[in-house]
Amino acid sequence: MTPAACVGDHVDAVASPALVIDLDAMERNLHRMADFARQHRMRLRPHAKMHKSAAIARRQVEAGAVGVCVQKLGEAEALAAGGIGDIYISNEVIAPDKLARLAQLAQRVRLAVAVDSSLGVDRLAQALRVAGSRADVFVEVDVGQGRCGVAPAAAGALAQQVIAHGLPFAGLQAYHGRAQHLRTAAEREAAIRHAVALARAAQAAVTAAGVACPLVTGAGTGSFALEAASGVYGELQCGSYLFMDRDYADNEPTPNAPRFEHALFVKAQVISRGHAHAVIDAGHKSHAIDSGLPRVWQRELDYANGGDEHGILRGAALPALGDTVWLVPGHCDPTVNLHDDYVAVRGGLERGTVEAVWRIDARGCVR
Amino acid sequence: MTPAACVGDHVDAVASPALVIDLDAMERNLHRMADFARQHRMRLRPHAKMHKSAAIARRQVEAGAVGVCVQKLGEAEALAAGGIGDIYISNEVIAPDKLARLAQLAQRVRLAVAVDSSLGVDRLAQALRVAGSRADVFVEVDVGQGRCGVAPAAAGALAQQVIAHGLPFAGLQAYHGRAQHLRTAAEREAAIRHAVALARAAQAAVTAAGVACPLVTGAGTGSFALEAASGVYGELQCGSYLFMDRDYADNEPTPNAPRFEHALFVKAQVISRGHAHAVIDAGHKSHAIDSGLPRVWQRELDYANGGDEHGILRGAALPALGDTVWLVPGHCDPTVNLHDDYVAVRGGLERGTVEAVWRIDARGCVR
Repeated sequence: MTPAACVGDHVDAVASPALVIDLDAMERNLHRMADFARQHRMRLRPHAKMHKSAAIARRQVEAGAVGVCVQKLGEAEALAAGGIGDIYISNEVIAPDKLARLAQLAQRVRLAVAVDSSLGVDRLAQALRVAGSRADVFVEVDVGQGRCGVAPAAAGALAQQVIAHGLPFAGLQAYHGRAQHLRTAAEREAAIRHAVALARAAQAAVTAAGVACPLVTGAGTGSFALEAASGVYGELQCGSYLFMDRDYADNEPTPNAPRFEHALFVKAQVISRGHAHAVIDAGHKSHAIDSGLPRVWQRELDYANGGDEHGILRGAALPALGDTVWLVPGHCDPTVNLHDDYVAVRGGLERGTVEAVWRIDARGCVR
Repeated sequence: MTPAACVGDHVDAVASPALVIDLDAMERNLHRMADFARQHRMRLRPHAKMHKSAAIARRQVEAGAVGVCVQKLGEAEALAAGGIGDIYISNEVIAPDKLARLAQLAQRVRLAVAVDSSLGVDRLAQALRVAGSRADVFVEVDVGQGRCGVAPAAAGALAQQVIAHGLPFAGLQAYHGRAQHLRTAAEREAAIRHAVALARAAQAAVTAAGVACPLVTGAGTGSFALEAASGVYGELQCGSYLFMDRDYADNEPTPNAPRFEHALFVKAQVISRGHAHAVIDAGHKSHAIDSGLPRVWQRELDYANGGDEHGILRGAALPALGDTVWLVPGHCDPTVNLHDDYVAVRGGLERGTVEAVWRIDARGCVR
């Protein structure tokens, strides 16, 4: 499918549905987070699972990020192909075929990966040995998410195993994903206090095992100010701050944390009008609904799910047939993953101009 | 990203997560529906919004389908490029730029489109006039979905307007999407009885307006036997029957309707093991969860949402690190839309061989 717009187009000419970035808002978000990391002497390694774009990752690195995180090897390959040279796969890779790909990729870029099993370490070491390449290894600790990661007490033995294979032990992966969307600041504070305690325990276990622990990495857009204040974390992995989404905007703000603006939108059009509802051309093939429905931007309209390709709007001032409606997606990461391109607009959604069309390089790279 | 497998690979060699078709099951589904349509003297025009693949559409046409439906112009363009020559866009197109594309496409394939507004008819007629091309026009009637479509009484005037523009009025679009997943057969029977009454009223309105109504088209995998028995519908638009999904399998069967088998799966791998849970590499970037979570295939395991890239399994017999797990997606249409390729396996998921890798031609074609 051809992109929704060309560079230089007026925003009105962008075909719908399209994934549109408000570049001015995105850049303000970009610098707010970079400034925060600098002021707090934290490394910033934004999570590119969110935007999946080498063009955007480059801007983050130019603003001071040390590199990016990804969640899948395929994402790392796509971003490396787009010129990103420092990538951390903050997730486990177990399949030998994938580990062979990983070891190949590590010949071309600075690569890191997480482990949480003895089998994982052995297989990674073997693949790197065969390829003659090198990757930093983080031991993942479960700090409350209940997903991947070892218990803090087990981190020491795994770090020793990494070292025993001659691999560089880079530190601890300690991300608490479930804490990010706890609605009140107090709930998030309690969850991250617990995560910090577990990360500290894992650090102690590593040190007690006679291994130096260079770094604890983690944090997300809902909690990063708490990890930054912990004295334990040295690197922030936030991703969504750049675009924000309805789900993050629904959080009560964290005290003393910078605020971020909505910078990602789905442009939609009314294609049908009833007496009491309007139907737009954007359903859940245009925006992900795993974290709830999108919000209609700057209009008093309720969005109801109309299926894969339709949204149903209700409210007092219904738009007319053919009108444009802008949506703020419920969850930015999987919404981005539905689209092939970003349309990046300068000058606002009403009067702006298309400054760039960026390929979403790692779209669909789940392997 | 490279495809998950090559033709000739053993199914064990398919990289995860991958979208895998059990070809034997798919072909049984294909022929069951084709046989049903033939026996009931119904036209079959399967909905390709579900599979988005020219290779699969060709197989449906070879088995007797008159063509396919799609929901978006971009899907029609992609399938036309793949050699499909008879396509019905069962949805409204309002943007003049899109109507110009539609009129261009109508120069190359037999095309039809739905309308539900006077503005839509005028703009369509103008675009076709400019391009010197022809498209069949269906008037959409709201038969219970509460989304697009006019009230039955308004169908006559719109059909007259189509005729007045010199466009071929092809009949009525009368699909009741919300009826498809009513869980009991009795609920679906009641919903479709109501839809049939509304379709009949719209037919009468068209006839009373002095316009012949050649066809009523609609129906889905949850209800088609009811539309087929109605005496009003002449064409079935079912899509999901070919793959089936967890949501359709949860329906109580319709009496006297053929049954369909699961033929679409996500292959996943265990990448982390806790004491009481296993984590697989397939989250909601690998399968859509708008209609609920996937079901683990032929294992007594519960799937819990682990985010974009993870699923969390619990149960008595947990798989080991590295094991393969097969998922039946909650909803096939948006799941397909996440992937670039199908891996089509012959001989079953345990011992089969990759017979084909098919590009998902219309993936992401939301415009």
